[in-house]
Amino acid sequence: MGIVTTSASVSLDGYISGPQGSGFEHLFAWYDGGDHEFPSANPGVSFRLSAADHAYLTAAMERLGALVVGRRLFDLTDGWGGTHPLDKPVVVLTHAVPQEWVDAHPGAPFRFVTGGIEDAVAAGHDAAGGLDVAVNAGEIASQALAAGLLEEVVLDVVPVLLGGGVPFFGAIGAAPRLLDGPDVTPGERVTHLRFRVRPLDPA
Amino acid sequence: MGIVTTSASVSLDGYISGPQGSGFEHLFAWYDGGDHEFPSANPGVSFRLSAADHAYLTAAMERLGALVVGRRLFDLTDGWGGTHPLDKPVVVLTHAVPQEWVDAHPGAPFRFVTGGIEDAVAAGHDAAGGLDVAVNAGEIASQALAAGLLEEVVLDVVPVLLGGGVPFFGAIGAAPRLLDGPDVTPGERVTHLRFRVRPLDPA
Repeated sequence: MGIVTTSASVSLDGYISGPQGSGFEHLFAWYDGGDHEFPSANPGVSFRLSAADHAYLTAAMERLGALVVGRRLFDLTDGWGGTHPLDKPVVVLTHAVPQEWVDAHPGAPFRFVTGGIEDAVAAGHDAAGGLDVAVNAGEIASQALAAGLLEEVVLDVVPVLLGGGVPFFGAIGAAPRLLDGPDVTPGERVTHLRFRVRPLDPA
Repeated sequence: MGIVTTSASVSLDGYISGPQGSGFEHLFAWYDGGDHEFPSANPGVSFRLSAADHAYLTAAMERLGALVVGRRLFDLTDGWGGTHPLDKPVVVLTHAVPQEWVDAHPGAPFRFVTGGIEDAVAAGHDAAGGLDVAVNAGEIASQALAAGLLEEVVLDVVPVLLGGGVPFFGAIGAAPRLLDGPDVTPGERVTHLRFRVRPLDPA
């Protein structure tokens, strides 16, 4: 079974998006930081990365088996039209299954889980075929951390201060929580920091 | 003239102290992470650092000429009894000079500035004798950044999540603000990330 991980581009002040959804041109600048092409599931879209970032992202994608996201992101993207840009199966944690969307996208590798973060992560493992499960940074990753399910945190640290927005971590439950690491991978306008989360103390 | 810099031990979620002043045993664990002794101005106190952290801190201290702190920290420590642990001159940004303390500590290398962050940084340069001026992380560093005076940001990233507390950055004024770097120095239970702040666009 793979591990449960989370990663996101994050500003120095800890935001994964800036005020009113701003700042992405800075947070994602490294996806356009070189000339090493990285394909997306959308035939019209590819990224052009530095050599270091290309190697980093290739390795991360090879480990990745499934994604767990929240309902807000699902709605915002309309479920990516049924195909996530990373071309991986998706578990959506939600209060109610969007039956209309499900009917309109037969065969889309999406599962909807209403039972909570534990069930969503279990569904992620089931969909991941032994590879890693990536939970979305922000609220979902914080819930997974609080539940003792999160095993790895990857900060793609971008040299920008956004001054506000959506933080990488929200309400994380019991604190402090210790980690080990990081492994450091310097990139172009990004520094990848990979930490391992220590298990929750048994209650 | 030296540069204006700020540095602090900071959690992965961006806090320089945890809820209700907690978390310092984790944030400052690297000051006790090895067997390379580093003296403080207090004859009873020294730190025991890893070789990498000792070299890092030695280099940082050699560059450091003066400190700029806020009135809250000054009051909390009672002005460190007149001698900052780093044995450097201190500028205190305040609304009112604490005349009683000044009278009780003749000769203490402390200056009190009531004119605002620009005056405090100018007094810092004056006291620093050509070396760097370190502004305290949190509110003071954020004010210096907003005023276009901050030239360097050093995050001593500690692998802990604190879940709340005092953030490294507060209200930073115009955003986004871009930086360059970082230079990365791995330590023991800490990773030092040094960024250069790009100048404010002229208004």
